Amino acid sequence: MAEASRTSEARRDAVFGRWVIFSPARSRRPTDLKSHGPANPSPGPDDGAPKPSCPFCLGRESECAPEIFRVPAPDASPSWQIRVIENLFPALRREAEPPAPEDEEPVGAGECAVRGFGFHDVVIETPHHEVRLWDLDAEGVGGVLLAYARRVQQLAEHPAVKYVQVFKNQGASAGASMAHSHSQMLGTPFVPPSVNSRLNCMKEVFESSGKCSLCAIQSKDILVSETHNFSAIVPFAASYPFEIWIIPRQHSSYFHETDQDKVLDLAGLLKSMLQKLCKQLNDPPFNYMIHSAPFGLSSSCLPYTHWFLQIVPQLSVIGGFEMGSGCHINPVFPEDAAKILREIDSSV
Amino acid sequence: MAEASRTSEARRDAVFGRWVIFSPARSRRPTDLKSHGPANPSPGPDDGAPKPSCPFCLGRESECAPEIFRVPAPDASPSWQIRVIENLFPALRREAEPPAPEDEEPVGAGECAVRGFGFHDVVIETPHHEVRLWDLDAEGVGGVLLAYARRVQQLAEHPAVKYVQVFKNQGASAGASMAHSHSQMLGTPFVPPSVNSRLNCMKEVFESSGKCSLCAIQSKDILVSETHNFSAIVPFAASYPFEIWIIPRQHSSYFHETDQDKVLDLAGLLKSMLQKLCKQLNDPPFNYMIHSAPFGLSSSCLPYTHWFLQIVPQLSVIGGFEMGSGCHINPVFPEDAAKILREIDSSV
Repeated sequence: MAEASRTSEARRDAVFGRWVIFSPARSRRPTDLKSHGPANPSPGPDDGAPKPSCPFCLGRESECAPEIFRVPAPDASPSWQIRVIENLFPALRREAEPPAPEDEEPVGAGECAVRGFGFHDVVIETPHHEVRLWDLDAEGVGGVLLAYARRVQQLAEHPAVKYVQVFKNQGASAGASMAHSHSQMLGTPFVPPSVNSRLNCMKEVFESSGKCSLCAIQSKDILVSETHNFSAIVPFAASYPFEIWIIPRQHSSYFHETDQDKVLDLAGLLKSMLQKLCKQLNDPPFNYMIHSAPFGLSSSCLPYTHWFLQIVPQLSVIGGFEMGSGCHINPVFPEDAAKILREIDSSV
Repeated sequence: MAEASRTSEARRDAVFGRWVIFSPARSRRPTDLKSHGPANPSPGPDDGAPKPSCPFCLGRESECAPEIFRVPAPDASPSWQIRVIENLFPALRREAEPPAPEDEEPVGAGECAVRGFGFHDVVIETPHHEVRLWDLDAEGVGGVLLAYARRVQQLAEHPAVKYVQVFKNQGASAGASMAHSHSQMLGTPFVPPSVNSRLNCMKEVFESSGKCSLCAIQSKDILVSETHNFSAIVPFAASYPFEIWIIPRQHSSYFHETDQDKVLDLAGLLKSMLQKLCKQLNDPPFNYMIHSAPFGLSSSCLPYTHWFLQIVPQLSVIGGFEMGSGCHINPVFPEDAAKILREIDSSV
């Protein structure tokens, strides 16, 4: 859309099939867009002392819900770097009986209700209260990603778990109830709505073009950075300003099947993207989500399912238009956001 | 789900086909759930004087974008009660050339881009700065709803407008950039994503049950209030705590075709629901959205399209789980929210 694109444009993406309105007139210059307040105060020198009220800190393990595993394993080291624990206030309960298909209680036409069975786990990313995920070295970030993959693999073996949503909320206004750096995952007894629409959209694209929507991405304009195994882009129809997707360059359906070398490569790129967002946008609250394939997918679906990690800095408010229509208004064109992010030095 | 329902439950609704997790353990008692801060300070006695910096106030009309119409018409009265104007910072531009189907630029497989054509209008609900929508009498609220209907009717006549999303953002954190009470509507050259998924879901329910999803709602447990023509309910699978839907009791596809008597009936119920939410939840920021049918629908779709108005008070933060999965976690069961709302006296 060349010239016109700098006024206003609507784009539909090939992964979720969502329309997004790009309206630069509604914003200041893209480089002026900043978070109103940092997600967390800058970390001071970490003296290693646990914070009095934080159960995620080293030495407070007994105040948490049960541990699932820790890294390194307890017999290898007296201390830990990462702990995967149960959520003390789980949205779904592992002790509930898993719903059987005949359990679905039809309530009205098309409505149904099932018991709240599922798994809600927490990944404590560091024993130290003030350390943010991107303060860890690439190996440390890699350890966190490997812990996700290992736990997803465990949950995939449960016959009633259909999907695991891995996500991180950074900052209170992005949904984090604890300041100590952590991620979460929810194993659900159903395939969530957005996963269904993503699969349907990617299937449609595959049937009409013979291509996987993510493998087909070519444009260099939206590329932020790439490594041997991964590309980081601002997607063509980004719903949010400065949204980033990290995508495996080789077609791959399941995040948790990524091998250790690739995970380390991903970790370096993730760390660098979080550093760039923090620098450019004034340490914004953010969310990231891993979009993988539901378990037990038939092999005919694998050619069009391609996992990726989506990072969304929180810069704008969701209003009634977005809630009602599912269509977002984004003041920053992806090409502009990608250019700004490419040019930031993430190394310092 | 009787007893178990008070622990945790997942429900799928018959309108959007979305799963929602009800998890009361994650909240205090439902009656304790309040907004952290009022959306706006309580209105003081309105002295009628315009606020120095508010272009929506009486007497500041020249500072606004062009007027589309006013109520009453300028030849009937020197003053006005409602003004429908263009948005000064439109997300879509009425002066852009409407996209023709052959204009869709295929960018990658499944992706496309069109010019940012569309209409973005504002409804100023009152000439007085401090008056909230629910401070107006039922006739005043009815005037606002009739102004929506009249403008939607005008936009429906434009061949390139496929849908009009009518919405209201109340309070800055719900997306309102102006404190003066107003609503907005966006006429789009495409059918927005949520409208498509709503139609697909309601079609599926209709094909399997022969029923319209909204006509089929029976339960008295989720009813808040009803009038001769409308029911106000907390939907069976509400995504948000204390979410309310106002639904015409007689099957009807298009909001803008509602006749004047019914609109006045709707206005009284809407006023009463907003008063109840304000009282129970400490004057929360909120959004409401009118969900109607896209224009030019074939007559075979009319039996399963049924318009409604959705009110969402803003009480919780959307985190990575909701963003990633499209599945919301609601700490308040709809039956509990409906009971609380039924028992509030909205009259004072």
